[in-house]
Amino acid sequence: MVDILHQVGIKSTVADVYTALTTIEGLSGWWATNTEGKGNDIGGVVNFHFGPGDIDTKVVELDPAKRVVWEVVGGPEEWIGTHIIFDLKQSDEFANVLFKHEGWKEPVEFMHHCSTKWAVFLLSLKSLVETGKGAPDPHDVKIDSWN
Amino acid sequence: MVDILHQVGIKSTVADVYTALTTIEGLSGWWATNTEGKGNDIGGVVNFHFGPGDIDTKVVELDPAKRVVWEVVGGPEEWIGTHIIFDLKQSDEFANVLFKHEGWKEPVEFMHHCSTKWAVFLLSLKSLVETGKGAPDPHDVKIDSWN
Repeated sequence: MVDILHQVGIKSTVADVYTALTTIEGLSGWWATNTEGKGNDIGGVVNFHFGPGDIDTKVVELDPAKRVVWEVVGGPEEWIGTHIIFDLKQSDEFANVLFKHEGWKEPVEFMHHCSTKWAVFLLSLKSLVETGKGAPDPHDVKIDSWN
Repeated sequence: MVDILHQVGIKSTVADVYTALTTIEGLSGWWATNTEGKGNDIGGVVNFHFGPGDIDTKVVELDPAKRVVWEVVGGPEEWIGTHIIFDLKQSDEFANVLFKHEGWKEPVEFMHHCSTKWAVFLLSLKSLVETGKGAPDPHDVKIDSWN
C-alpha cells in the first residue's frame, strides 16, 4: 500500500475550508465544475464529472471543521476502494489541509500523475477559499497526456 | 519508508529535459535561482540556495536523456540520505518525467508539504522547458507557512 500525501496552508478558517469540502457549491469551485450529489451527510455520494471521466465518492467520515473522509465508489479502477482524507488544523493565519489519498495497491505511473494532479487541485482549493475563484476541471492546469 | 511520487509530461524532448536537470543554467531556471556546483558529473555536488534554507545534492547516477539520480547530502534533517530520481521517457509529443523522492523515514507533516512543493517545482520545470521561463525560488508558488 502506498499513499499520496500533500499539504496546503490556506489563509482562512478551517470552517470555510470545511464548507468548500462538503458543499456542492464548494466542490464544484475547485475540483470539477460539473459536480452533483450530497457531500455533507455520512453515506452521501458525490458525482464528479471530469473531462477524462467520472469519479464518485461516498462520504464515510465527517467532523465539522476538522476532518472529511471519502471512499471512492466509482472511477478509474485503481481508485475504487481507496480513501481520500482531508484533516484540517488552524495554525495562526493558516487553515492547514493535511491531505492523504490512501489505499493504492501499486505505485503505478497513473499514481504518479494523480499525485501531481492532486497538488494542482489543492492549490485550486486554496485559491477558491482565499480569493473566491478556483480552477476546477475543465479550467485546471493540464500536466500530461492523462490530462 | 515512504516515497513522494509525481509525473509531468513536457511538450519537448527528453534531451532538453535532461539538460534542464544537469546544468546549472537549467537547474537555476526551475528549482532555485541561486544555484551553484556541478550537475553533469557523477559525484558532482550542486548547492541550491532557497529562501527557507539550502539543499545540497550529490549526483549518483546519470544516463543521458534517460535518468538522473541525486543523493541529498545537505539540507533539512529529514532529507539527508534520501534520493531524488528523475526517469525520462518520450511518449509522442511528451517527454514524461517520472519523479520519485524516496527514503523518507516517516510520513511527517513536512513530507506532505514537500510533496505539494515538488509538484509546484515540476510544473516550473515543465514551464521552463516549454516556454523558456520557469518559476524557481524565490519566484515559486508559496503554499503554506513552510514557504
